Amino acid sequence: MAQRPDRGEVATYIPELARIDAKSFGLVVIDADGHVAAAGDSEVPFSIQSISKVFTLTLALGMVGDRLWRRVGREPSGSPFNSIVQLEHERGIPRNPFINAGAIAVTDLILSGHQPREALGEIVRFMRFLADDSSITIDEAVAASEQRTGFRNIALANYMKSFGVLENSVDFALGVYFHHCAIAMSCRQLAMAGRFLAHHGRNPDTGLLVVQPERARRINAVMLTCGHYDGSGEFAYRVGLPGKSGVGGGILAIAPGKASIAVWAPGLDASGNSHLGRIALEMLTKKLGWSIFGV
Amino acid sequence: MAQRPDRGEVATYIPELARIDAKSFGLVVIDADGHVAAAGDSEVPFSIQSISKVFTLTLALGMVGDRLWRRVGREPSGSPFNSIVQLEHERGIPRNPFINAGAIAVTDLILSGHQPREALGEIVRFMRFLADDSSITIDEAVAASEQRTGFRNIALANYMKSFGVLENSVDFALGVYFHHCAIAMSCRQLAMAGRFLAHHGRNPDTGLLVVQPERARRINAVMLTCGHYDGSGEFAYRVGLPGKSGVGGGILAIAPGKASIAVWAPGLDASGNSHLGRIALEMLTKKLGWSIFGV
Amino acid sequence: MAQRPDRGEVATYIPELARIDAKSFGLVVIDADGHVAAAGDSEVPFSIQSISKVFTLTLALGMVGDRLWRRVGREPSGSPFNSIVQLEHERGIPRNPFINAGAIAVTDLILSGHQPREALGEIVRFMRFLADDSSITIDEAVAASEQRTGFRNIALANYMKSFGVLENSVDFALGVYFHHCAIAMSCRQLAMAGRFLAHHGRNPDTGLLVVQPERARRINAVMLTCGHYDGSGEFAYRVGLPGKSGVGGGILAIAPGKASIAVWAPGLDASGNSHLGRIALEMLTKKLGWSIFGV
Amino acid sequence: MAQRPDRGEVATYIPELARIDAKSFGLVVIDADGHVAAAGDSEVPFSIQSISKVFTLTLALGMVGDRLWRRVGREPSGSPFNSIVQLEHERGIPRNPFINAGAIAVTDLILSGHQPREALGEIVRFMRFLADDSSITIDEAVAASEQRTGFRNIALANYMKSFGVLENSVDFALGVYFHHCAIAMSCRQLAMAGRFLAHHGRNPDTGLLVVQPERARRINAVMLTCGHYDGSGEFAYRVGLPGKSGVGGGILAIAPGKASIAVWAPGLDASGNSHLGRIALEMLTKKLGWSIFGV
Repeated sequence: MAQRPDRGEVATYIPELARIDAKSFGLVVIDADGHVAAAGDSEVPFSIQSISKVFTLTLALGMVGDRLWRRVGREPSGSPFNSIVQLEHERGIPRNPFINAGAIAVTDLILSGHQPREALGEIVRFMRFLADDSSITIDEAVAASEQRTGFRNIALANYMKSFGVLENSVDFALGVYFHHCAIAMSCRQLAMAGRFLAHHGRNPDTGLLVVQPERARRINAVMLTCGHYDGSGEFAYRVGLPGKSGVGGGILAIAPGKASIAVWAPGLDASGNSHLGRIALEMLTKKLGWSIFGV
Repeated sequence: MAQRPDRGEVATYIPELARIDAKSFGLVVIDADGHVAAAGDSEVPFSIQSISKVFTLTLALGMVGDRLWRRVGREPSGSPFNSIVQLEHERGIPRNPFINAGAIAVTDLILSGHQPREALGEIVRFMRFLADDSSITIDEAVAASEQRTGFRNIALANYMKSFGVLENSVDFALGVYFHHCAIAMSCRQLAMAGRFLAHHGRNPDTGLLVVQPERARRINAVMLTCGHYDGSGEFAYRVGLPGKSGVGGGILAIAPGKASIAVWAPGLDASGNSHLGRIALEMLTKKLGWSIFGV
Repeated sequence: MAQRPDRGEVATYIPELARIDAKSFGLVVIDADGHVAAAGDSEVPFSIQSISKVFTLTLALGMVGDRLWRRVGREPSGSPFNSIVQLEHERGIPRNPFINAGAIAVTDLILSGHQPREALGEIVRFMRFLADDSSITIDEAVAASEQRTGFRNIALANYMKSFGVLENSVDFALGVYFHHCAIAMSCRQLAMAGRFLAHHGRNPDTGLLVVQPERARRINAVMLTCGHYDGSGEFAYRVGLPGKSGVGGGILAIAPGKASIAVWAPGLDASGNSHLGRIALEMLTKKLGWSIFGV
Repeated sequence: MAQRPDRGEVATYIPELARIDAKSFGLVVIDADGHVAAAGDSEVPFSIQSISKVFTLTLALGMVGDRLWRRVGREPSGSPFNSIVQLEHERGIPRNPFINAGAIAVTDLILSGHQPREALGEIVRFMRFLADDSSITIDEAVAASEQRTGFRNIALANYMKSFGVLENSVDFALGVYFHHCAIAMSCRQLAMAGRFLAHHGRNPDTGLLVVQPERARRINAVMLTCGHYDGSGEFAYRVGLPGKSGVGGGILAIAPGKASIAVWAPGLDASGNSHLGRIALEMLTKKLGWSIFGV
């Protein structure tokens, strides 16, 4: 990774991501009344990467319900996002849906016999619906870049396949996975898409129920304990909000009952989470008293 | 462990604990105004075991401040409470203060050159102060029982000592550790002692500040991510409150801004956490809408 | 695996291998003078599987010399043949050339920019030369079967690729690997091919040097410490000869200075080594006093 | 460890060993006819440390027979001499008798209810008998030094005790263990003591059978696969003889049917084995064609 002091380092293992301007910074907060506070590059689309895992988890739970938890756990892994050690010890069952292996298993559930194109269409439509924005698309160059170089993810998927944890072909599951990670969204779009998690499963504009309140609560819980890989404890300790990071430098954070927040700053810390993004969220929750652990 | 269907199994690895009546059940909720709701065996003292780790962490942070985090991490371990594997990979630094190794390292910081008797006196006085109850004592039979049979903890302590992570003698650190785990408290006393965590660091009766609000928040965060060993994700998912369990069957749970809750039911699940205690807390938070992840 | 008491269980994870008659048994001993002692199904070709690793190691050492040891270690792994845990801890460098990951890395060295067809031709020609038998071929049905179902090996190869340990494309390396494992040979052919290891690197018939004596010695040493996966210690303890097993049920054993021995019995023990094959070799070395550890 | 280029580094974790002159070097070869070839500091006693494990294994096998293998395995560990990870995965059963945990378990079998003093007397008498030299003693300063600082070994022993693998008290088992590691012997004494392993279980002078030939063979096999910790593969590859090293810088090597060899050079390599000792043995076996893997 290229050295960029103070800001962390931009992910370079996906060649397309390495080209991003490390000085980019965007922040959007959308409260219960729909008020939008925006700062910086809040309208610039970036690669949401692992943040997509929150939405594929939501989608898959809607399709298969709690059966999902037979294929993937919901405990923090204590390991980096791409570790394979735990998979060997636990016979191919990933620890949680927010490490790569877990998200690939969730993607396999969404596929469930369909063509990759259909599954992907479903995911993109869901994102557009949540963000109320039909302009959201996949960055094909990023998807292609990951597909060419994602050896670690190919290894994880084949390893799970060897234990019978994946039902579809590895190529199909990975094809969809690489593509939904390559969805490009701005902070504004991302914060819009996260509102249902902040508001008990409901879209606060339309009043429409996206998921039952209990499910929204539980997804938030998994975000808090597992949303930042082996930096999840640190994020809970410093920020005190459920959140999910992506190696594109984005973080989606949820202040339950209060707001949906998206931040973007491409430099990453050692655990692969946005360095400035985390600091900005820490300052914000401190100032506003939004930590779920007490004012 | 003795088979006791539906209630889980009483811990038997500490012989003294194996004698507890598995049908015991107590629950106490104390809200911000000091109202106490109690049910069942709420006045029966039980061995708080690992719940003491919350209070020794608080005490040690008061003594050495954030220097504490050089000796112990704050990430979930993804491993059982007594695992030693992680210690070898991370050169003797325990993952967090709520697994046994971490709590022994914290105890070593409290000792810091003093005699075990003095350190232990400090801890007991702190518990009495927090619970406003001078009758709290150590169950010497339990402490002696652990000291005779706690081979795994002796192994953990010596292993850390070999990496220079403990400063005091292993015997001193373990002596204090075994004794503070053997503190006996009722649900009422425990809920009383936990109030400062629910109320931004402050004793709501006296208005006295026990710790800064930020520290209370952070201790709650560590409780949420690490308080139930490799069942921490499950507890967050189902209950949605910061909590700390002990193999004596107790759980202290914190509803920030709302209440301090203690529950006791000796039967344990596979991760060593109170089985009925967790279910009772799940029902309670659901009913009252107290989950920190949304109503 | 299908239950077959006393004989072990035939490997079923490669569908083509599952069809083998579990009662097959063949044994051939060829001494320094070229005398051949044969018993049972000594002329029936079987899938040599991992035994090919001895010959690809020999070939690769001939091509790149001791540079090979930068890509693969030579310590016993203490793990099953297809474990991936060690690869994560040691940054993609396999422990030894006789576990699957190591043999894939060796195959990658043989490829070194050539087409799979050429590399494979080289390997088959080498086997025919060593066995002095041009009828040796690859069982394409077995190779195709492995290629369709070898998810674990695909995972291992991609995992190494992610660390830059493989130079060629994963598909090429695996294609050649699956095919050389699918070489079919009889016990007679296999024992013929192993003679250079028993006779200080020399073909005892022709007097031709295949490898330097020191290299033969060293390959024998790696066979002894690593040739039976996590059953290597057991094989050394009971048989006392350098040996290499394959999941097809074959074992090649070397009595240095005395004989080259091949045995075939398809039923496997828990470590994936021929059960009766090992017992036969144990009886043989005991009777003949051929153990390298003393008569 | 103190830096000493070319010679490796003298073990410093046992304070008493750190005082040894790093330039010491001794070598003794005793052949079947009893001829003794000696060079350098061949008469200087040094701390045999882990080499004692060969003799305690022999003694324990004589006492309990193959029942010993229920308590300890005989596979290479692939791990350093003091690793604890494997013990957690395999429920307290050490991989082999030549890593520390395994040797402590073997020591526990020798104790079998007796007083440490008696068990230790038994071990010392056995060493004197084998070496035909009643002057062999324990270096009490070294034993005391290890007992004060051997936290890692105390951890290993308590860890096994927690799984019920040790029958005697941890203090007793470790007391005897630390003392037999502290036996001081010269190269000559050590080579004398090893003769029964080179000569099919028999003392070649007296013709007396120490162990059955099969047992001598099998002990040699375990020495070859496990005698140098995670450097065992390397020793087999380079030297090609069964051997056992100690952190005091000694190595006992066995050329079956030919000779018993002891070498001493205190500087250690990264795996804790004598650096010059291994090189000397490599040159010797090469020159004499004594490798068990071929001339």
